[in-house]
Amino acid sequence: MTHIDLNSDLGEAYGPWSMGDDAAMLDIVNSANIACGGHASDPETMFRSLTLCKEKGVQIGAHPGYADPLGFGRRVIPMTPPEIERMVAAQIGTLQGIAALAGATVTYVKPHGALNNFAAANREAADAIARAVKAMPGSLALLAVSGTELETAARAAGLTTVSEIFADRGYQPNGQLAPRGTPGAMIHDPDQAAERLLHFLATGLMPTVNGDPIPLEAASICVHGDSPGAVAMARHLSARLQAEGVTLKAFT
Amino acid sequence: MTHIDLNSDLGEAYGPWSMGDDAAMLDIVNSANIACGGHASDPETMFRSLTLCKEKGVQIGAHPGYADPLGFGRRVIPMTPPEIERMVAAQIGTLQGIAALAGATVTYVKPHGALNNFAAANREAADAIARAVKAMPGSLALLAVSGTELETAARAAGLTTVSEIFADRGYQPNGQLAPRGTPGAMIHDPDQAAERLLHFLATGLMPTVNGDPIPLEAASICVHGDSPGAVAMARHLSARLQAEGVTLKAFT
Amino acid sequence: MTHIDLNSDLGEAYGPWSMGDDAAMLDIVNSANIACGGHASDPETMFRSLTLCKEKGVQIGAHPGYADPLGFGRRVIPMTPPEIERMVAAQIGTLQGIAALAGATVTYVKPHGALNNFAAANREAADAIARAVKAMPGSLALLAVSGTELETAARAAGLTTVSEIFADRGYQPNGQLAPRGTPGAMIHDPDQAAERLLHFLATGLMPTVNGDPIPLEAASICVHGDSPGAVAMARHLSARLQAEGVTLKAFT
Amino acid sequence: MTHIDLNSDLGEAYGPWSMGDDAAMLDIVNSANIACGGHASDPETMFRSLTLCKEKGVQIGAHPGYADPLGFGRRVIPMTPPEIERMVAAQIGTLQGIAALAGATVTYVKPHGALNNFAAANREAADAIARAVKAMPGSLALLAVSGTELETAARAAGLTTVSEIFADRGYQPNGQLAPRGTPGAMIHDPDQAAERLLHFLATGLMPTVNGDPIPLEAASICVHGDSPGAVAMARHLSARLQAEGVTLKAFT
Repeated sequence: MTHIDLNSDLGEAYGPWSMGDDAAMLDIVNSANIACGGHASDPETMFRSLTLCKEKGVQIGAHPGYADPLGFGRRVIPMTPPEIERMVAAQIGTLQGIAALAGATVTYVKPHGALNNFAAANREAADAIARAVKAMPGSLALLAVSGTELETAARAAGLTTVSEIFADRGYQPNGQLAPRGTPGAMIHDPDQAAERLLHFLATGLMPTVNGDPIPLEAASICVHGDSPGAVAMARHLSARLQAEGVTLKAFT
Repeated sequence: MTHIDLNSDLGEAYGPWSMGDDAAMLDIVNSANIACGGHASDPETMFRSLTLCKEKGVQIGAHPGYADPLGFGRRVIPMTPPEIERMVAAQIGTLQGIAALAGATVTYVKPHGALNNFAAANREAADAIARAVKAMPGSLALLAVSGTELETAARAAGLTTVSEIFADRGYQPNGQLAPRGTPGAMIHDPDQAAERLLHFLATGLMPTVNGDPIPLEAASICVHGDSPGAVAMARHLSARLQAEGVTLKAFT
Repeated sequence: MTHIDLNSDLGEAYGPWSMGDDAAMLDIVNSANIACGGHASDPETMFRSLTLCKEKGVQIGAHPGYADPLGFGRRVIPMTPPEIERMVAAQIGTLQGIAALAGATVTYVKPHGALNNFAAANREAADAIARAVKAMPGSLALLAVSGTELETAARAAGLTTVSEIFADRGYQPNGQLAPRGTPGAMIHDPDQAAERLLHFLATGLMPTVNGDPIPLEAASICVHGDSPGAVAMARHLSARLQAEGVTLKAFT
Repeated sequence: MTHIDLNSDLGEAYGPWSMGDDAAMLDIVNSANIACGGHASDPETMFRSLTLCKEKGVQIGAHPGYADPLGFGRRVIPMTPPEIERMVAAQIGTLQGIAALAGATVTYVKPHGALNNFAAANREAADAIARAVKAMPGSLALLAVSGTELETAARAAGLTTVSEIFADRGYQPNGQLAPRGTPGAMIHDPDQAAERLLHFLATGLMPTVNGDPIPLEAASICVHGDSPGAVAMARHLSARLQAEGVTLKAFT
């Protein structure tokens, strides 16, 4: 593979409170998952984020999450699949409304945090999200973690489906992420992260924490935007990949 | 004038809390101003409201208001015109997102409560709202109170502009509403309200509380949906107008 | 037993939205569980509720719930025990602040909805709630469903612990409530509800849905305040119990 | 004057979003105005803030503000005086509830942002705040800007009233702050700020931006906690004042 996309969760400020260094990250990534007012953001923040994406030529994705700012969308809020469907549609619509004002275009959707994790393992929730995405105007793609129920649901719904892998998370031989807290779950060393990705891009095989490398499909790499060292990690990955001849560009 | 539209503010429940009798009102009015999650409503409520409008063939308008549920959008929240513009775009987008899911179409916008009153008298706020409406997809019309800055701003922005009058509010000779608490400001008697509207429809002249009738332009009559007696008042007006040969139908 | 307390969840309005008929219920019950701004209520509503309790001589309990108004506190929000402890302390404090202003006194605490259900079966959550209640000024009692982990935790913490039974819910032979949707789970007939309670008050034995009556301990009966027919049910129970010589009075 | 208090607005995080460097500021100031969940903060943040104050021996004040996190309490929300009274009581109560859990004690109140500014010039709002403070348990003091209606109202209500001046704001000859944007309104140079305060502490006379020094009364100096350079400014002031023999200690 000679080209791939870098995506990151951005636009996660809330009123007077900032989160991460969006301006720096938007100079690195090709696609930005922009919070929609559910787990984070508000109309002013969305407008700033979308305007910045447009200026820097970064592809825009809607990043809906549980409507739980105090939990930052990292807690599973008990909801039925139809409730999830309506929540996701509302949040995508909100971002599309602001995008219309900013002269920007939303081209894909990636669920956030606990919603993404829940839909990764729960087909009914995954189908609900896929239905919401399909109903929206603009023929939106769905960016899903490789190997999840959400990816399966998106393909089944006939959506343009883009699979992603994580730059800094270890994989198990079954294709699932190694749980946080287990050896190799988090990759903090930028060099190690880069080498692993280059190996994957060259061979299609992803190293695992305790077994043989496994085949994974991916058109995008998720890099974190809000942890300490996030910008340095993303910048290093970008430089190393390009130095090895990988073209970084948006997946659509 | 042999036809006119009846509109009402509806869809103003919030989670477990209901407001007014939407099902009854939707059997009477031609156009429903549906709350967008700012002053009231949430994704579940919006979906129910839009589905009901679609079933009953009622025209759908977005009804954005200050994002202040505890104040029900009746308090002026200090905001700059660009902040108003983004808030309105976000709320219209939210409703459009849910409408896409419900297979319904939003065709116009009417601001709510304090936002509507503020924009009625403040041209900069009115222009901000008009810009937001114009930026949205769907060539939305703007429903504005007859004689206000908002009506002027909407026309100046090239929007399809629909003027409304109030069924139960008295007018002053200068075309403004008589302030609440002054004689004739509120019309509680359905017969009196009906007679006044019939006079206006026949002559184009609206009686005033303390002077000669004045010419007003209007393609829609606003009836309240959440006060005690709201349904009875609306039902009576509808019956009387139709009995006198006035056709009630949506303004677009 | 010749005396008992009737309690009900009240004060659950939210800004412009009302819930149930508090004024009517406060003429019937002896103790009112007042929402604290978590699952419902706001400072204005709390002040009105507390003032009404004071006027009518109704004992006041704090009724903390998950901070989830759209879910009305009926969804379990994932929280650690320390997070539950702080949330409960914050909500009791809020109500005590308003009570100080209203010249009213909070004397007990009863958790709401999903929080109450969760703590009924989870000892760590129950302990967290008991710790919060114990830390508050005013030597607050804890009102817990008879037979639950919360009741056990409250006694273990040395709190004045008051046990309650439900007027309109069927019991299983193991002392747990029959799950909603199973035969006998809900008692809709006021006469049947009254007879059952009188039997319990006379014998200390509660009939079950599918077995022999079981011994239960209770100093309070919970009657619902917000369902259709709630006021009629409560009024009937109150009249029947008093007609049979049972004195209804607050548990402290 | 050989001793004075330094106070700062702290504890203004919100869920996952941080604000300023509280740990650094709490090593410098004597009194911390802690957000109460209105304009900022939540139960977890309050608990952390109060625990940190207790550990560092910093006096604790409640810092209530308009319940408007997106506006950070910097917008005037239209409210009647009784509504302000209840909102302030609710917020102080919330913080007192968490303080009871943390084994900490709230000893004073200082309103935040737009609420403080509004009450500085509006006697009815000031009286409402004073009534709320007086109703709370704990004989709370009120920290008010020198020369304001709030200070007058607090004294009239019989509250222990502590007056404050600003470390980095210029004064007009009439005792009011020079409006932001006018010459001398903001003092960015730590040396200049220190010299001015030392002059005031030695003489009781505060220099003005365009006239003679004026007499001011103050037992506390407000230093900002969340602007760039806030920590450096506060640290410099603290060092300079102590080097000149001024003792810094909490006002009670």
